[in-house]
Amino acid sequence: MTAIGEFGEFAFIDRIRATFGTDADLLVGAGDDCAVFRAGDSVWCVTTDMVVESVHFLREANAEDVGWKAMTAAISDIGAMGARPRFALVSMASPPDRDLAYLDALYAGLNDAAREHGAIIIGGDTTRSPEGLYADVCVLGEANGGRYVTRGGAQHGDYLAITGWPGRSRAGLDCLQRDLKHPALIDAHLRPRARIAEGQWLARQPGVRAMMDVSDGLAQDAGHLAESSGLGVAMTSASIAVDSELALYCAEAGVSIPDVVFAGGEDYELLFGFDPAVAGTLLPAFRREFGLPVFIVGQYDRAFEGVRIDGLPPTQFGFDHFRKT
Amino acid sequence: MTAIGEFGEFAFIDRIRATFGTDADLLVGAGDDCAVFRAGDSVWCVTTDMVVESVHFLREANAEDVGWKAMTAAISDIGAMGARPRFALVSMASPPDRDLAYLDALYAGLNDAAREHGAIIIGGDTTRSPEGLYADVCVLGEANGGRYVTRGGAQHGDYLAITGWPGRSRAGLDCLQRDLKHPALIDAHLRPRARIAEGQWLARQPGVRAMMDVSDGLAQDAGHLAESSGLGVAMTSASIAVDSELALYCAEAGVSIPDVVFAGGEDYELLFGFDPAVAGTLLPAFRREFGLPVFIVGQYDRAFEGVRIDGLPPTQFGFDHFRKT
Repeated sequence: MTAIGEFGEFAFIDRIRATFGTDADLLVGAGDDCAVFRAGDSVWCVTTDMVVESVHFLREANAEDVGWKAMTAAISDIGAMGARPRFALVSMASPPDRDLAYLDALYAGLNDAAREHGAIIIGGDTTRSPEGLYADVCVLGEANGGRYVTRGGAQHGDYLAITGWPGRSRAGLDCLQRDLKHPALIDAHLRPRARIAEGQWLARQPGVRAMMDVSDGLAQDAGHLAESSGLGVAMTSASIAVDSELALYCAEAGVSIPDVVFAGGEDYELLFGFDPAVAGTLLPAFRREFGLPVFIVGQYDRAFEGVRIDGLPPTQFGFDHFRKT
Repeated sequence: MTAIGEFGEFAFIDRIRATFGTDADLLVGAGDDCAVFRAGDSVWCVTTDMVVESVHFLREANAEDVGWKAMTAAISDIGAMGARPRFALVSMASPPDRDLAYLDALYAGLNDAAREHGAIIIGGDTTRSPEGLYADVCVLGEANGGRYVTRGGAQHGDYLAITGWPGRSRAGLDCLQRDLKHPALIDAHLRPRARIAEGQWLARQPGVRAMMDVSDGLAQDAGHLAESSGLGVAMTSASIAVDSELALYCAEAGVSIPDVVFAGGEDYELLFGFDPAVAGTLLPAFRREFGLPVFIVGQYDRAFEGVRIDGLPPTQFGFDHFRKT
């Protein structure tokens, strides 16, 4: 026998995805941030995201934060298609001895995060769990005017850019663990926001060809994004936006800025590939529209597979653990 | 503190449902078999249903059957609105040591049940579970011509009818446990079918005012259905369809027919309320269309709350456990 733990999650997903069917109204199937389907004269995106106690969060964690993050992670997948979140369903399996106040707080976090991003909860399921709490969040979003952006579609030479401040969530987690006082970084970790308005705006711009949200880490997700277009991506560690608080934290914690930025995930920033011809207009227009940084962090390349950072594979670059500077 | 186990699942659902928001495109919110929403010029139904190892199924159960039943239970909620199942998403949390062959079989059952009812899986999530397997199935269905039937909407004096052969799944479970040879009953338990064509047909008929699928048991679900219209329901134990195999099983097992029929759940038969004025045409037309029994099992009544069977509350009728005849 082969256990799923040995086989690997991504390999298993590829394996089962091949058994799914097709439908004329299915525009994007499994393997992107969302599945996309035609519903009458409209186009909808749908995604599910499951969080598990002792895997994604600890029993001691604040329940409202757990609910907020679970909802935001799922909603961010809608934003990553450039769509508008509308409706969410939450299935929860809870141990029978779990305090009602804990569950009320969990749903308060779920509701708040849904509303923050323009969606509401419309249903779900509740059942008993023999051990630990499990919450599965399904979100439905509408693609404005039928427009959406998949992970694939970028071409050789296209630029790769990222919104906002990647690395803040990972830095915030480290601040919590080491009792460092950087409330804005801690907030970025506990109460991340999905880039909903930004995603919809990017989906409207000509030349934007591929998009995803960063949940597993910038370097790893850049690899996934490039792979969806059958390309590699050359990234440079110098071209990243670092806000003053993240810079301060890195100095204080003795962590290299590129490490925390390339390793960091759960920021739910948007990573997108676009035609170099529009770079001169697209990025300034984005900054004006949202008052938010957006920087080119790499370029798609057909000459190799995977990610290179400053010409090196990520393992040699060493982004995958925090190094002392 | 109050634990959720003491507070009760239905009470908790009512409690959290009150915290959800509203939306002009939300036609039916939490509390029915599905939530229903407007998507452009079309109307869609969505539902989620979570199954948990050691709660809904045993580790030893055949994984294909587990997958089939999980998908069918969720799809049946689409049928209960009179809608057409289209797309499903499956989130699964699995222990890392679970055999790949087990998970392949689980997804084979999920895929087969989806296809059997006209739907396909289009996405989902896979994650690690510290203990036991959890699967959450989300199904999206389209309401033909925008037509759907909710649980509410029945009036005093309306008849309550049920399709097919309620009780077969419960009898099949008993056959498995007692090693009785009734393959058709065992099949009804292990491989239930949702009444998809029947639900869509009923949603088209004038006078059909309320509908749900029977998952928890006929008597219990009839109570839920009547409550959604703010009414009670008077049921009679004589007016039920009993196929010859169920009758044979009851004689052999020493079980009363009304007991197994009123206690039985997981048949996914449709229970529906309708205007008595159409009884003479509706039921014969149904039988002709589907070659399937359909019988009036009760009448809505404003004079009392809950269910009465032959004039007695279900507890006195004793349907809630198997009695020796």
